[in-house]
Amino acid sequence: MEQKDRALADMVADLARSSNVEELHDLLQNQRPEDVADLLEHLDGDTRDVVFAALDQPMASDVLPELEERVREDVLEGLEIDEVSRLVEDMDPADAADVVGDLSHADATAVLERMDPEEARELRTLLDYPEDSVGSVMSTLFVAVRADGTVGDAVETIRQRAEELGDFYYVYAVERQGRLVGVLSLKDLLLSPRARPIAELMHRDVISIRVDADREQAANVASRYDLYALPVVDPEQRLVGQVTLDEVVEIIEEETSEDMYRLVGLSEDESVFSSFLFSVRKRLPWLYVNLGTAILAASVISIFETTITKMAVLAALQSIVAGQGGNAGTQTLTIIVRGIALGELDLRNTWRALLKEFALGAANGAAIGLGIGLLVWLWHGNPWLGLVIGVAMLLNMMVAGIAGAFVPVVLRWLRIDPALASAVVVTTVTDCLGFFFFLGLATLMMPHLR
Amino acid sequence: MEQKDRALADMVADLARSSNVEELHDLLQNQRPEDVADLLEHLDGDTRDVVFAALDQPMASDVLPELEERVREDVLEGLEIDEVSRLVEDMDPADAADVVGDLSHADATAVLERMDPEEARELRTLLDYPEDSVGSVMSTLFVAVRADGTVGDAVETIRQRAEELGDFYYVYAVERQGRLVGVLSLKDLLLSPRARPIAELMHRDVISIRVDADREQAANVASRYDLYALPVVDPEQRLVGQVTLDEVVEIIEEETSEDMYRLVGLSEDESVFSSFLFSVRKRLPWLYVNLGTAILAASVISIFETTITKMAVLAALQSIVAGQGGNAGTQTLTIIVRGIALGELDLRNTWRALLKEFALGAANGAAIGLGIGLLVWLWHGNPWLGLVIGVAMLLNMMVAGIAGAFVPVVLRWLRIDPALASAVVVTTVTDCLGFFFFLGLATLMMPHLR
Repeated sequence: MEQKDRALADMVADLARSSNVEELHDLLQNQRPEDVADLLEHLDGDTRDVVFAALDQPMASDVLPELEERVREDVLEGLEIDEVSRLVEDMDPADAADVVGDLSHADATAVLERMDPEEARELRTLLDYPEDSVGSVMSTLFVAVRADGTVGDAVETIRQRAEELGDFYYVYAVERQGRLVGVLSLKDLLLSPRARPIAELMHRDVISIRVDADREQAANVASRYDLYALPVVDPEQRLVGQVTLDEVVEIIEEETSEDMYRLVGLSEDESVFSSFLFSVRKRLPWLYVNLGTAILAASVISIFETTITKMAVLAALQSIVAGQGGNAGTQTLTIIVRGIALGELDLRNTWRALLKEFALGAANGAAIGLGIGLLVWLWHGNPWLGLVIGVAMLLNMMVAGIAGAFVPVVLRWLRIDPALASAVVVTTVTDCLGFFFFLGLATLMMPHLR
Repeated sequence: MEQKDRALADMVADLARSSNVEELHDLLQNQRPEDVADLLEHLDGDTRDVVFAALDQPMASDVLPELEERVREDVLEGLEIDEVSRLVEDMDPADAADVVGDLSHADATAVLERMDPEEARELRTLLDYPEDSVGSVMSTLFVAVRADGTVGDAVETIRQRAEELGDFYYVYAVERQGRLVGVLSLKDLLLSPRARPIAELMHRDVISIRVDADREQAANVASRYDLYALPVVDPEQRLVGQVTLDEVVEIIEEETSEDMYRLVGLSEDESVFSSFLFSVRKRLPWLYVNLGTAILAASVISIFETTITKMAVLAALQSIVAGQGGNAGTQTLTIIVRGIALGELDLRNTWRALLKEFALGAANGAAIGLGIGLLVWLWHGNPWLGLVIGVAMLLNMMVAGIAGAFVPVVLRWLRIDPALASAVVVTTVTDCLGFFFFLGLATLMMPHLR
């Protein structure tokens, strides 16, 4: 929080404690909804409810969609269903769908029943789109004008809906059946005489996306072509919505976090202040999976218990070989998972990436293997022990390069999210083989080691 | 690549092989620059040079800034300095700065010397802004109108610069000295009579950012308030540029990737197809740092060599305790680093997050400790061995929660990037203490274990 925000937060908390609702209302009325939302997120639950109750309805409707899910749930729990319905009716359809979509099924049904039937119908359509589809993130507030009209007609349409529309830059041209046939910008309209036909002015080569496509694809297309908004069409090419660039920003933020989280076995729904039980429930399964793989790796060590009994220093050195393999494998993995997400890897160039990572594993493995080999030689005064750990390190880091690159590519080919399962598989491989290479070589060379 | 793109790519590759420059030119002339850039990125070096040479100058100027750095470097290497100067002159100043900024100092100087002096001066100003500052990412193409003018004046200004400007939504109102005093949208202009004074129409409460602020801050502000562009001012509040939303998308993508990369010791400059030597140079130092910490952890094991000689199974089980600590610590770490990046954590609520992560470590530690304890009891038929590993697991996962949460917070307080160094510190702590807890307890309980 900035200095200024903190001063405001203190003032609001004081007013809330003295239940000075009128002054609270006046103070918050002139703030931006995003700032009020931020403020609410930083207050404790009871103060928050007092402050939210002090907002008038339009402000409350603007603030709710801006709140983090966790805080919004808290706020909504304190409201009657009737109040929620009224607030939702005031929102943009896309925001309303976000809010209602997070409610329990029973609450959502109750809210929809109390709403204006026409608005409820529209909301139900939006809520029916599958999660992560373009339909679930698009806005149904857009300007469509008839392609056979004039600039003057378009300006009139915009004037009538100016209040409701908020900010927008593109105006879409549609045919009689609603089929999208062109796009123009406010700049085009502003610089053209009113009598000019839309059909002359519009760009016919319009980039659009299907309502059932993946939202990540919409984000990629919009950001690739630097579009302020991407029109959304149904299978009959009829315009049904648009994905705005602020939504694109949110999608990209979420999808990148998602990859980052999944690599370490976190759920993308978890955040710093998720409830304790939620976090336990989300993290434990992955920890149990890792426990299983750790036991597997331990059983590899068990095979060599006789060797270790003869020479306990091996037990200390084994973890260096396994750990470095894990580190190198995770680096490769992250690069490849990111390359897949950014669309840099396709069928034709994947083999190049695999080859490079294998070579990198060999080069870095040689460098690290030489370093640890010399060190162990000096430390324990036995060149053979240095040779064993050096060679095991080289082998394991080559394995790390191969596994780190192959596993996500194969998972993706199997249509499993590479970010989700790759890390577990790769570290299991580098752990098991790391122990096997090192202890196996040590067993073979035992006569020279002691 | 999509089906359609692949067909185009094949056609282009065929034409390039037969050096059919004219047909190449005609085929590519009607493509979007982003698509041509994508095509070039997927071609091998020689074919790429032939294809790039077939583009006419305006298309080449549009394509260059869209290319990945690595590919752009390749393309630029094949061009004369004179050609580069001409291409750069044709670009938007921000794009030109991107391209010239990536050149070697000598090449950049040579390019600037051959450019129009006025344009070169503007470019030098942009190049002088520190990396990661708002100045380094802003566009100097924006529309400013006099606050004491009329809507008609503004439309005239826009008309004169329409070609050069591309897409934009906001028009900034400035005073005589260039001080930013208001903002209006194209929608405002479109719906107002031409005689209306700008001063009446403009929004005075304009959100802006200082040119020397961090680019990440610009991205956060623009995305928070859903702005199409964020005006940039100098210390005297004079308008000097704007950060557009497509730039915001890029910043957010880069900063999130950066965090993800740094957590595993990768450089943010590396991508799937970075050169082999570049990747070796960037990854090796981190692997060496980790080698150091692995040796530290190994030396903890060494303390207990006598214990291990007596009971080699401990060498197999020790890595389970250390590894699970690392996994849990990395989960906590990722949540906290992300919370810091998203601005969810501030001074007031950090203690709450720390407390929660500690409690989570204890809860998950109890669950995992119980699981492995029972398993080891059954496996080895010795309840004491189960107790030792269960308790060591619980302790180490509590440590993981504390270290995973404290380390990034402390690093950030020390102004060290938490993403960069946290993982190494946390896993060193969980490795060393994991081995220490388990082998230490085992040593104490040795009479019961055998």
